[in-house]
Amino acid sequence: MSQNFDVVVIGAGPGGYIAAIRAAQLGLSTACIEGNPYGDPKGEPRLGGTCLNVGCIPSKALLHSSHLFEDANHHFETNGISVKGVSVDPAKMVARKNAIVDKMTGGIQYLFKKNKVTLLKGYGAFVGQADGQTQVKVTAKDGSEQIVSARNVIIATGSKARHLPNIAVDNQIICDNEGALNFTDVPKKLGVIGAGVIGLELGSVWRRLGAEVTVLEAMPAFLGAADGSIAKEAKKLFEKQGLKFELGVSINDVKTAKKGISISYKDSAGADKTLDCDKLIVSVGRVPNTDNLNLEAVGVKTNERGFIEVNHDCQTAVNGIWAIGDVIPGPMLAHKAEEEGVAVAERIVGQKPHIDYNCIPWVIYTSPEIAWVGRTEEQLKVAGRAYKSGQFPFMANGRALGMDAPEGFVKMIADAATDEILGVHIIGTGASDLIAEAVVAMEFKAAAEDIARVCHPHPSLSEVMKEAALAVDKRTLNM
Amino acid sequence: MSQNFDVVVIGAGPGGYIAAIRAAQLGLSTACIEGNPYGDPKGEPRLGGTCLNVGCIPSKALLHSSHLFEDANHHFETNGISVKGVSVDPAKMVARKNAIVDKMTGGIQYLFKKNKVTLLKGYGAFVGQADGQTQVKVTAKDGSEQIVSARNVIIATGSKARHLPNIAVDNQIICDNEGALNFTDVPKKLGVIGAGVIGLELGSVWRRLGAEVTVLEAMPAFLGAADGSIAKEAKKLFEKQGLKFELGVSINDVKTAKKGISISYKDSAGADKTLDCDKLIVSVGRVPNTDNLNLEAVGVKTNERGFIEVNHDCQTAVNGIWAIGDVIPGPMLAHKAEEEGVAVAERIVGQKPHIDYNCIPWVIYTSPEIAWVGRTEEQLKVAGRAYKSGQFPFMANGRALGMDAPEGFVKMIADAATDEILGVHIIGTGASDLIAEAVVAMEFKAAAEDIARVCHPHPSLSEVMKEAALAVDKRTLNM
Repeated sequence: MSQNFDVVVIGAGPGGYIAAIRAAQLGLSTACIEGNPYGDPKGEPRLGGTCLNVGCIPSKALLHSSHLFEDANHHFETNGISVKGVSVDPAKMVARKNAIVDKMTGGIQYLFKKNKVTLLKGYGAFVGQADGQTQVKVTAKDGSEQIVSARNVIIATGSKARHLPNIAVDNQIICDNEGALNFTDVPKKLGVIGAGVIGLELGSVWRRLGAEVTVLEAMPAFLGAADGSIAKEAKKLFEKQGLKFELGVSINDVKTAKKGISISYKDSAGADKTLDCDKLIVSVGRVPNTDNLNLEAVGVKTNERGFIEVNHDCQTAVNGIWAIGDVIPGPMLAHKAEEEGVAVAERIVGQKPHIDYNCIPWVIYTSPEIAWVGRTEEQLKVAGRAYKSGQFPFMANGRALGMDAPEGFVKMIADAATDEILGVHIIGTGASDLIAEAVVAMEFKAAAEDIARVCHPHPSLSEVMKEAALAVDKRTLNM
Repeated sequence: MSQNFDVVVIGAGPGGYIAAIRAAQLGLSTACIEGNPYGDPKGEPRLGGTCLNVGCIPSKALLHSSHLFEDANHHFETNGISVKGVSVDPAKMVARKNAIVDKMTGGIQYLFKKNKVTLLKGYGAFVGQADGQTQVKVTAKDGSEQIVSARNVIIATGSKARHLPNIAVDNQIICDNEGALNFTDVPKKLGVIGAGVIGLELGSVWRRLGAEVTVLEAMPAFLGAADGSIAKEAKKLFEKQGLKFELGVSINDVKTAKKGISISYKDSAGADKTLDCDKLIVSVGRVPNTDNLNLEAVGVKTNERGFIEVNHDCQTAVNGIWAIGDVIPGPMLAHKAEEEGVAVAERIVGQKPHIDYNCIPWVIYTSPEIAWVGRTEEQLKVAGRAYKSGQFPFMANGRALGMDAPEGFVKMIADAATDEILGVHIIGTGASDLIAEAVVAMEFKAAAEDIARVCHPHPSLSEVMKEAALAVDKRTLNM
């Protein structure tokens, strides 16, 4: 006899656990299936998915530690502070990171209990459908199986690091995001393949801690998804910090020897080159986790890139089966998955939530941070939309100077005729929080002049947003 | 023969210099009068007013330095960073602060040139009115005088520290905000009279740098202007950090001896007590600067508290004379003065700008920061308005944990019937920037549910705002 629920969620990452909690809040009997131990010593499944265990949260914990180290090495003296013998113990840094992750993942267990979400430990796979119910098999780590059924199943299995065919990731010497969060020594020379979000964030962390970092990227453009002027500024600033970039390369071969790794590649001009390093991070994107779901049993299809296709409401083509987050097409962002999780739970009970995908913000946690929402100039040009653009530097902001953080700018793009904000692009300290104002403004279809006329506290970094809005109308007050 | 302008602004603080720039942008011939050297060695007038020279900007520069020192002493170890011999050189810290102030005040000179604002160096005083023109006399530091006239004059002379009758401020041992920014040694024992914004900010700076700080406050309530729960949390956190507070005291006498200062006071129970300290900061509020304006010459009146009365458009009762910022009633906030400066310039050319004073944010730059906008619970109770309230702690936010900043919370208050946001109150890291989102939301008359449904980047501090909005409807996802 199988246990029956109103909703079964497969995966307890940020999309899945939020979907489960929202479903339970709405009065649905809900179960959430999770089997991934993420290196747990006892092999117990851990909640929170990639984001919490080996992604957003641990990387931000290390990021903070590495910033303190950078402060001690580079910013103390001008601030009148003397210290001697600055040293870093990466193992202790990693232990602190692990404690934060433990606290957060334990927190989800508490949330499940509080909201009466049943946690099913194990990996979920589809069995079939009958009488309007979908059957899912849960296989625990000891091999025991149970079948659960539900009228609605939400696939929230997320994604995993893409690996390259000839590069064996051992997460000791050659690492993806998981191994790169757990170095117990600072590598002298660190190679990074892939100048995407993860490569830049983790490359920056270990650069601050003392590694010499070289990033190889296959694409000829740097940060192609970002607005062009942001990408250009980012590259300039990161290079100034000591990160080295080679764009437009093609990797030939990676050899591992006792002494380290040797990467042979062709540079953008076609010349053969070699990069020697002690550790290598492979961060060349992520692929959806669908392998063991037995999708065939229910007829859910994946597209040529392995993603589960859904309609605008996150419904698959199969009745009662939904999919959210990294496993479906769209940006692989935890907060996008969360919004979809909430929306699907609400749709199941007949509510009509709406997600404006144009108002999903992006963040890259480099130093300075990068964040944006809406359209880039490049996208608007392609779309043939007439726009005006305004930009203001943190250099002219008193709070930023006080914080030793004068780098970067805010750029606001508005419709040439209506002044509606079409995109906001930030590179600068605090970008991950500053962008929130822009998202709210865009959700309300604000004009640039609206933001220009809203009072912003002085002195604060948010004044740069106001001045960028004034810049759209060519009337900055402080530039 | 007197020089004639369309607009003359008296005072180049944040209200005045912004008013002058905006007036010039609008095509008005504009002059700005400033005589205060703020300790400039050559006695040259410095632009930017209290805010830039001896207020917001220098205090935030010191605040940053003192945070780095606190990090080195208290946060490095758990982050795996070892240092020895942490010491601070306050003189160097103050020199860095001065360099930032110099840069910013120089920036305004550049802005005046760029916008063709005429800077008149000296102190301004009214002479009289004739033929629709107001005459103002400018007295330079060498005593030379010139008369300028304008159809519109904007009084933006700001405020100065209130001093107490029996306590002589020398800005060496007994200091107001000016002296407290320039200590070249960390006092062992620092007394502060007045637990307002300035007392708390500067008291916190010197506490972080090693001073033992005791704050005496005449009012029985702590931070009476803030929402009650914020004030309560603030007091708890500041006391945990080592600040000592005595509320409801009355100061009897302050004696200065070679060895320091002795303050005798009655505590809230009426008992006689003494506080001995090395330095004393007197921060008991600020009074408007109107003494030398010769207001009588034009018939502008001040009220019983010394402020210039204006109508909702910042017009005095005298035609062609306006007043903005700290010199008029209302909160003494630089950004409030700036908004008024812009609005008055625009009104002079016939535009119809509007300032919603309910959407002017407040910030206190303690650690953690405090910021709010709109109404407090206490105000709503007095007004008899039915409301609901939601609160979410930074403790449950992954980014805050990663930053070692789990203290505090966001509280959102919404109308019980319409869900319109009536107030947002933050105590927590980054509050000064997080509040910007709330201000925009309130300007757009957003409902709490609007913010709850807006996507916030993960992981970011701004998620606490979203969760507080969800808490209004009792449906937090992560608590």
